[in-house]
Amino acid sequence: MKAIGIRTGASEPELLEVPRPDPESGQALVRTLRVGVDGTDREVIEGGHGGFPEGEDYLVLGHEAVGVVEDPNGTRFEAGDVVVPTVRRPPAGGENGYFARGEADMAPPEKTVERGIDGAHGFMSEYFLSEERFLIEAPPELAPRGFLIEPISITEKALELAYAARSTFEWEPDTAAVLGNGSLGLLTVAMLAREMDVYCLGRRDRPDPTIDFIEAQGGTYVDSRKTPVEQIPEEYEPVDLVYEATGYAKHAITSLYALAPNGVAALLGIPGDWEFEIDGGRFQREFVMENKAMVGSVNSGPEQFRAATGTLADLPADALDDLVTRVVDYRKFEGAFEQSDDVIKTAVQFGER
Amino acid sequence: MKAIGIRTGASEPELLEVPRPDPESGQALVRTLRVGVDGTDREVIEGGHGGFPEGEDYLVLGHEAVGVVEDPNGTRFEAGDVVVPTVRRPPAGGENGYFARGEADMAPPEKTVERGIDGAHGFMSEYFLSEERFLIEAPPELAPRGFLIEPISITEKALELAYAARSTFEWEPDTAAVLGNGSLGLLTVAMLAREMDVYCLGRRDRPDPTIDFIEAQGGTYVDSRKTPVEQIPEEYEPVDLVYEATGYAKHAITSLYALAPNGVAALLGIPGDWEFEIDGGRFQREFVMENKAMVGSVNSGPEQFRAATGTLADLPADALDDLVTRVVDYRKFEGAFEQSDDVIKTAVQFGER
Repeated sequence: MKAIGIRTGASEPELLEVPRPDPESGQALVRTLRVGVDGTDREVIEGGHGGFPEGEDYLVLGHEAVGVVEDPNGTRFEAGDVVVPTVRRPPAGGENGYFARGEADMAPPEKTVERGIDGAHGFMSEYFLSEERFLIEAPPELAPRGFLIEPISITEKALELAYAARSTFEWEPDTAAVLGNGSLGLLTVAMLAREMDVYCLGRRDRPDPTIDFIEAQGGTYVDSRKTPVEQIPEEYEPVDLVYEATGYAKHAITSLYALAPNGVAALLGIPGDWEFEIDGGRFQREFVMENKAMVGSVNSGPEQFRAATGTLADLPADALDDLVTRVVDYRKFEGAFEQSDDVIKTAVQFGER
Repeated sequence: MKAIGIRTGASEPELLEVPRPDPESGQALVRTLRVGVDGTDREVIEGGHGGFPEGEDYLVLGHEAVGVVEDPNGTRFEAGDVVVPTVRRPPAGGENGYFARGEADMAPPEKTVERGIDGAHGFMSEYFLSEERFLIEAPPELAPRGFLIEPISITEKALELAYAARSTFEWEPDTAAVLGNGSLGLLTVAMLAREMDVYCLGRRDRPDPTIDFIEAQGGTYVDSRKTPVEQIPEEYEPVDLVYEATGYAKHAITSLYALAPNGVAALLGIPGDWEFEIDGGRFQREFVMENKAMVGSVNSGPEQFRAATGTLADLPADALDDLVTRVVDYRKFEGAFEQSDDVIKTAVQFGER
């Protein structure tokens, strides 16, 4: 079968011919429908993430997938069921407590591999296998957009951690700042804008489809070149919640200053080392005097995938159509990983339901 | 009546003659037993905190008090009840939502005054008044140590926020680092050591009573001059929980590196501005990749005072006797605010039950 992957030492992905896998006991065979592309894929291509699967000289890309069950192989599924796979799997050493508890998203990096990212093949192939417990059912009508369930689940988890951190007192956030107008940031704008006023920070000039998207959701675009995150309270208003999806460490740290008292910042970006000066005294003082919180969040688990399935169903279809600016056939995937100002979200199409 | 206070412009507290207050409706008159001294009192004396009560040229010190009800004045109390007052009161403008909800500890600085600290007289006087809702009952046998309920409540709140931030997954902390071997740090060591392995960081040479206290609780003393907080994982082990009570911003920030995956740091110190360089990239990356959290915590409310009353009753009396190294009569309070290496905790005695 065909797969989109990257070979050891290569700098560009290729269309590979790889063996079609046979399911073992407890695994279902899934025929791939669509796989989303995001910034992590680009980082994987650039070699910024983890390794290749043990003993392999290529890595199949893709971690945002939706497919249909081709061979249930004794699992709870029926042929034709629409399913979405989670991303983390036990490492070569086998099962550990995080997986046993259904909390693989809380595993430290050495206790997990990530399909399509680090140490395990992804889903950009005509078929893929998955253990039953890592497959989430999705309603058939969500099949065309089901690849958005993974990124939405990332936000579900970050928000869950953020809300939990504020659960000891009355906290009803009505303002949020989303840092980053990539597809994850924009999905989060769409999610949050249903319940609160949202500012979304980016570095784009008008006309721009991401700015159009933010405004169509009722959000406010903030040009961070003119208004850095710490100036949001002065230029607009303090926010109860910050969602950081840039990986730009200076913004992650100074987002504390954008928060209203008792606010919380959820950090999701993964930067490399970068030394710079901060007013550490002010940082700690605002943390303490205003009872603020900061949570880091990576990956997501089955529970958040299930929540994301509901969220996806609730989000307006036309908004999602504006978000998915490009669907490319897997045989002509060249360019799918390239970014440009008129691309928000790309999906690679492998099949029809 | 006599009170220990500081006059405008003075650099040392004095024994003042002030009017004995008359309770208004809803207020009880309390006869003071003991009032604890802590680092905040020293900061108030040095002018580092807020202001004097409106229209007054002195501030009565003290915010860690225990007393007996002298005149219940129609409140739920009876004469002779042992009570502990909370610290925050509505500001001159009057009530706000934080107080109405019993969450004054979550109020931003401009929505509250703090007795003995900022904008309102403290409890270092022969009698004090308090609104009924700001008085917490304590069992009579706790009267001699009841002034410890306020500092314990500070830790109760910080731990409540920290645990809440980890409540979305299975989190059973069994190691903690307490930064700071002042009386608050040591009380926290005593509290945490009942349930987990505790490292307490300080900058003292042996022989030293704080090191003796840490070890008597089963904790491990760490000389932070030799092992800074970020080296705890290497020298000892990563910790699930950090409790920061130093106000030293560099340690507060680098405490993130002492945490095990999924750990949480509670920050309590209140430093002044201080610019320094950090590896902000590493800071954010560890936050995210290891799902860590950081919570700031200031003050405490009636619920945490009640929890602290139970905690105080459970703590071993001999440990507390080791902690309270000095009880001075209010008429001879000179030196009560001075710190030295053989003083851990000082209480000022105003009366007997």
